[in-house]
Amino acid sequence: MENIYLIVDILGTIAFAVSGVLVAMEKRLDIFGVGIIALVTALGGGTLRDMLIGITPVTWTTTPMYMYIILGAVIIAVLFQSRLKYLRTSLFLFDTIGIGFYTMIGINKGVEAGLEPLICIALGTITASFGGVLRDILCNEIPVIFRREVYATACILGGAGYFLLLKTPLPEAYAYLMGVALVIGMRLAAVRYHIALPNIYKNAGPLKD
Amino acid sequence: MENIYLIVDILGTIAFAVSGVLVAMEKRLDIFGVGIIALVTALGGGTLRDMLIGITPVTWTTTPMYMYIILGAVIIAVLFQSRLKYLRTSLFLFDTIGIGFYTMIGINKGVEAGLEPLICIALGTITASFGGVLRDILCNEIPVIFRREVYATACILGGAGYFLLLKTPLPEAYAYLMGVALVIGMRLAAVRYHIALPNIYKNAGPLKD
Amino acid sequence: MENIYLIVDILGTIAFAVSGVLVAMEKRLDIFGVGIIALVTALGGGTLRDMLIGITPVTWTTTPMYMYIILGAVIIAVLFQSRLKYLRTSLFLFDTIGIGFYTMIGINKGVEAGLEPLICIALGTITASFGGVLRDILCNEIPVIFRREVYATACILGGAGYFLLLKTPLPEAYAYLMGVALVIGMRLAAVRYHIALPNIYKNAGPLKD
Repeated sequence: MENIYLIVDILGTIAFAVSGVLVAMEKRLDIFGVGIIALVTALGGGTLRDMLIGITPVTWTTTPMYMYIILGAVIIAVLFQSRLKYLRTSLFLFDTIGIGFYTMIGINKGVEAGLEPLICIALGTITASFGGVLRDILCNEIPVIFRREVYATACILGGAGYFLLLKTPLPEAYAYLMGVALVIGMRLAAVRYHIALPNIYKNAGPLKD
Repeated sequence: MENIYLIVDILGTIAFAVSGVLVAMEKRLDIFGVGIIALVTALGGGTLRDMLIGITPVTWTTTPMYMYIILGAVIIAVLFQSRLKYLRTSLFLFDTIGIGFYTMIGINKGVEAGLEPLICIALGTITASFGGVLRDILCNEIPVIFRREVYATACILGGAGYFLLLKTPLPEAYAYLMGVALVIGMRLAAVRYHIALPNIYKNAGPLKD
Repeated sequence: MENIYLIVDILGTIAFAVSGVLVAMEKRLDIFGVGIIALVTALGGGTLRDMLIGITPVTWTTTPMYMYIILGAVIIAVLFQSRLKYLRTSLFLFDTIGIGFYTMIGINKGVEAGLEPLICIALGTITASFGGVLRDILCNEIPVIFRREVYATACILGGAGYFLLLKTPLPEAYAYLMGVALVIGMRLAAVRYHIALPNIYKNAGPLKD
């Protein structure tokens, strides 16, 4: 069980670090800029979550493993940049895998702190989305989360699914992995089938930029 | 006394949530975007204040009431959007009411933590302004606080007025409400009578954007 | 020894406050805007560092001295604005002095919290750079740290130099001051001799803005 949490944590960290490298190289930042964006993307969400709950010193300052994993992922991604480039949807994939893992990590930390399911889901969504928001703001892009994709919605519904599964006889570790799969699956499905949120505007004028 | 703090807290939360809805709908965000902006606007200032003082887990994670109030305000504001639209000055009003309440809430938390009046006023100003700054940054607007209105000034002078009133025989609860009224009144007066801050530039060239 | 830390702290605070005033006056903000930018620039990095480590209430809320120093620096900088203006490189100098002092202050806090050298260097870099990043974002400039200068690199190498010097018989206070000098010296040298980071892009196309 302990192992599953650790593996999920490492996979999410790598996925977000690579997504940071991809956005930063798209902007042609220098090597330190690429490293900083990768660190911010992979550590930003968990850092805000830890500060909100009061887990201090925040996790990455006491577990240097995360920095080594991220810096390793940066080096590998930069060395194999030409292969990454041909995967046209690679940024989207790494970002989606990252939010799936990070949503459940954040929910888990909230549960450990004794907080209510609604608050845990909010913390999971923050853990999953804040690093990517910082990445996009620092790279001067409109944050992915505010684009037309179902993003936060996937985190929220996946988190709600996890709490429902906990009420079934399913072992906790499976419910946890199902939560990760739900978030990833819903975001992929939403993009694949062009599922959009209902319109809330009475007079449906053209969208503003 | 306890009740007055709670009522002020709830009214400020609703006012800021509605101001977030108004800015987000102006940008025609989808329903989740509107909800997120409302949450960030209403919870952002208090969250930063709690993290600065070390009140963790931060207040909204242990008191889910705030999230319910904000989500309720979002639903009502979206349902009655056509009425809100006709109130041309509604965003300005809700924002002003919000900063009045939040300034005093922030000052009160600083006093409870045993901090000096100058620092309490800074914390009150942060509580009142940070949510709105985040709202405007996320919606790609120039933060209201940096526009030509007397904004932070109202928070600072209102807070100073509260500490002066505490030295009079006036009961604390009245001084507290007077502080709220002072912040709101000064901002309304500044806009109504076009009161501006003194010019600090020696050669009065044209203003840059 | 205690005195050296205090003097370094005060000099760094003044340097960053003046750098904030210079950027804010360039944008012709009003007097409160100038004061807020100076406060954010001088206190932003240390605030994030304190929140990451869990030093709460954060240092500036319990030591009002910092606010008085910053507000004093703002008044003096505004009064003598015409002289500052003639120093064409003054913003660059104050910013560089600030990062030199703040890098070592941040590293010192990390060491006191018992964290590893790699993490201490990261905290020093955050302390040195976050205030300036906030200053530039609030003033709608591209953050200095992401421009073509060797910036974070100077913090990282200066910090690494400090930890190496600690292994020599040199007294700790001298190693500390050498660390400050290393950061400042490396940034000045990088700009003076146009030292740039190695190119990581395989097909060296034109840089994007």
